[in-house]
Amino acid sequence: MTAVRVGLLGLGTVGSQVAERLSREAFVTERAGVPVELARVLVRDLNKPRAYAPPRELLTTAPEEILDDPSIAVIVEVMGGMEPARSHIEHAIESGKAVVTANKEVMAHHGPTLLELAKARGVDVYFEAAVGGGIPLISTFKIDLLANEISRIEAVINGTTNFIIDRMARDGVGFDAALAEAQALGYAEADATYDVEGFDAVFKLCIMSSIAFRTRIHPAEVYREGIRDLDPVDFAYAAELGYAIKLLAQARADGDEVEVRVHPTCVPTSHLLAAVHGAYNAVLIEGDLVGPVLLYGQGAGGRPTASAVVGDIIDLVFSMRKGISNRIAVDFSRAPRRRPMDQVRTAAYLRLHVADRAGVLAEVTRVLGELGISISSIVQKALIVEHAAAELVILTHPARECDLLAARERLASLSSVYAVPAFLRALSEAR
Amino acid sequence: MTAVRVGLLGLGTVGSQVAERLSREAFVTERAGVPVELARVLVRDLNKPRAYAPPRELLTTAPEEILDDPSIAVIVEVMGGMEPARSHIEHAIESGKAVVTANKEVMAHHGPTLLELAKARGVDVYFEAAVGGGIPLISTFKIDLLANEISRIEAVINGTTNFIIDRMARDGVGFDAALAEAQALGYAEADATYDVEGFDAVFKLCIMSSIAFRTRIHPAEVYREGIRDLDPVDFAYAAELGYAIKLLAQARADGDEVEVRVHPTCVPTSHLLAAVHGAYNAVLIEGDLVGPVLLYGQGAGGRPTASAVVGDIIDLVFSMRKGISNRIAVDFSRAPRRRPMDQVRTAAYLRLHVADRAGVLAEVTRVLGELGISISSIVQKALIVEHAAAELVILTHPARECDLLAARERLASLSSVYAVPAFLRALSEAR
Repeated sequence: MTAVRVGLLGLGTVGSQVAERLSREAFVTERAGVPVELARVLVRDLNKPRAYAPPRELLTTAPEEILDDPSIAVIVEVMGGMEPARSHIEHAIESGKAVVTANKEVMAHHGPTLLELAKARGVDVYFEAAVGGGIPLISTFKIDLLANEISRIEAVINGTTNFIIDRMARDGVGFDAALAEAQALGYAEADATYDVEGFDAVFKLCIMSSIAFRTRIHPAEVYREGIRDLDPVDFAYAAELGYAIKLLAQARADGDEVEVRVHPTCVPTSHLLAAVHGAYNAVLIEGDLVGPVLLYGQGAGGRPTASAVVGDIIDLVFSMRKGISNRIAVDFSRAPRRRPMDQVRTAAYLRLHVADRAGVLAEVTRVLGELGISISSIVQKALIVEHAAAELVILTHPARECDLLAARERLASLSSVYAVPAFLRALSEAR
Repeated sequence: MTAVRVGLLGLGTVGSQVAERLSREAFVTERAGVPVELARVLVRDLNKPRAYAPPRELLTTAPEEILDDPSIAVIVEVMGGMEPARSHIEHAIESGKAVVTANKEVMAHHGPTLLELAKARGVDVYFEAAVGGGIPLISTFKIDLLANEISRIEAVINGTTNFIIDRMARDGVGFDAALAEAQALGYAEADATYDVEGFDAVFKLCIMSSIAFRTRIHPAEVYREGIRDLDPVDFAYAAELGYAIKLLAQARADGDEVEVRVHPTCVPTSHLLAAVHGAYNAVLIEGDLVGPVLLYGQGAGGRPTASAVVGDIIDLVFSMRKGISNRIAVDFSRAPRRRPMDQVRTAAYLRLHVADRAGVLAEVTRVLGELGISISSIVQKALIVEHAAAELVILTHPARECDLLAARERLASLSSVYAVPAFLRALSEAR
């Protein structure tokens, strides 16, 4: 078999690292068994300075020069964003080229469709790099844990929000200041919506849970809340109660139902995910045979992501050398019901501003009791003397979301309750 | 493609869980794409009661009834031990059958040879279950991290010793008592040598590092020290200095040299592996692109191991359906030099019984200084009044093992030093 020619779409943080690694010819050939040649590279600007620059004559601004080149067997898409990335991937598949992509947005929205198209066309689409940088997550779901019925995924899967949360938790910094700092350090984009509002985590959770639960979970089906409304005071109170606050991505399969959600969550400090800091990601998977498995590593960045991209290229070349494709059929044919968010059972953390007088606690606990919500711990916090008010922090046992929301509303309407400034879900079990 | 017929060798803790999972026909067919049928099961005793009992007519005590049955395409070896397991695997390969094995002892000693034989015979040998139960370690080294030059493996990979160590660290129990407890609870065998002396960890480290470093590392090449000589007092002192003691399996590649070793090690409490307790295993892998990656889960037991075995069976069936084998060539052709243990650089923890008089500290530090060993911290501990003696605990910066051993010897020969009851290596960096 002669050299496998690769067309690279994008030469940014990830693309330049992929190009650099592929330029190590002896290294790649030793591992792939045949030479892998970087044939062409799609860029927007031919003259931009880059971390690693492939030979100038390989660069082009015309996608068709790559997508329509019959000598190119593999397209590596590392441009990011929905379009034109999605169209290029589709075009590549239709031209009979295999695809390696790091694109979570495309794979979360169109992965199953593209995989189906690829199957029909007899080519492979690999996307390990779309979730968690170089952490081997996709392969774990696609192959390694296939003997299991997966019941649960819990993940800290967005580095930007985790950096911000660390700053808020450790130093009591407010959200806006922590975000500004993350932006100044290059950990957050100028427009941080994608990360801060939880979209990025939703995309990654869709990709993982669709494979794990063998059903097509669309981003619009995922309950989503970002971290913008977190208050530093709640990190301190949660810590006193033995909890860290994380932007947690969770997916559960329970009988014929699945639930998928991304929101700030109080996590017991003894839980493995409570110790995941900064740019690190970790995914805890629960399978019925394997029990809990945790995979941890750098969740983003040029080099970790290039590890997954080039790993996929080599894996793909292994199959090409054997003349096969679609060895692993990722299957989305199951149709479990989606549990509506208000039917989800979760523990909760509530912070109340209450009147500093006798009988308030009784009123509050009565409201919770009437809704069948039992209390795990309750703490009266800092007295705000000038308002004759106190802060009450309540941690509940698991209850239905709809009852928790009703409780929040009824509590807020009590004359002795001035406000309910914080309502967070909590994990009730450690790991 | 018709059903794939599987012959199972062994129906113990792991084998019965494999049989149970394969008995879920719809589940396995959904995942493998074709039915996987448990054809025959090799047992020693036809009448032994078992966790899951396949139909009685499948059981046999005659290995040739399975190994020579041309209708059986896959042999699953979960007997454990060297012989007759190794011979059965070899026999199966020579008969053109694919093999899935959970046997670390066979794979550590004969893996490369068996894989070569399998390649020549055009069949596959899978062994994910040989290391770390259901944690996807082998596939991570074989495929996912192929784009990386792996520089380091650090692992807590033996649950029995980790249980004993937990008891010693948490409750100050002595080794013998902790071992007896582990045996009473079924966490340790009656003859615990295999675990306690580090052989089990050596086998697992050989398998991982041979793949990672692309060279054939034999168990005899691994430096090995068990946990039998650990003293509970050192757990307490190490904790004061910010360290946990773990039986750590370590492999490093450094230029043209590799080092592989299993011994008790002081691990900074902030290191991820310091938090691995009881029956859990964790492997930290450092690749030049991916950075550090941690994989964590239950390292043994019937169900976690069956997760890996049945996962391998399904993966194998994927290749059989495509009519291929040996898609991934595991390569052991590199020949890095082995760094002798006395040339390894490591930090160290020393505990000394010294005379309780002026000038002793100066003598001790002079000996270390003459050998070029610098001190990270030094603490004078519990005075033993009746002997006019004190305990001195020293943590060094990294130095060559030969210099550390020379220091231990010279220190022991000082008139002011009564004994050097503890010498442990330490990791100097947190993770």
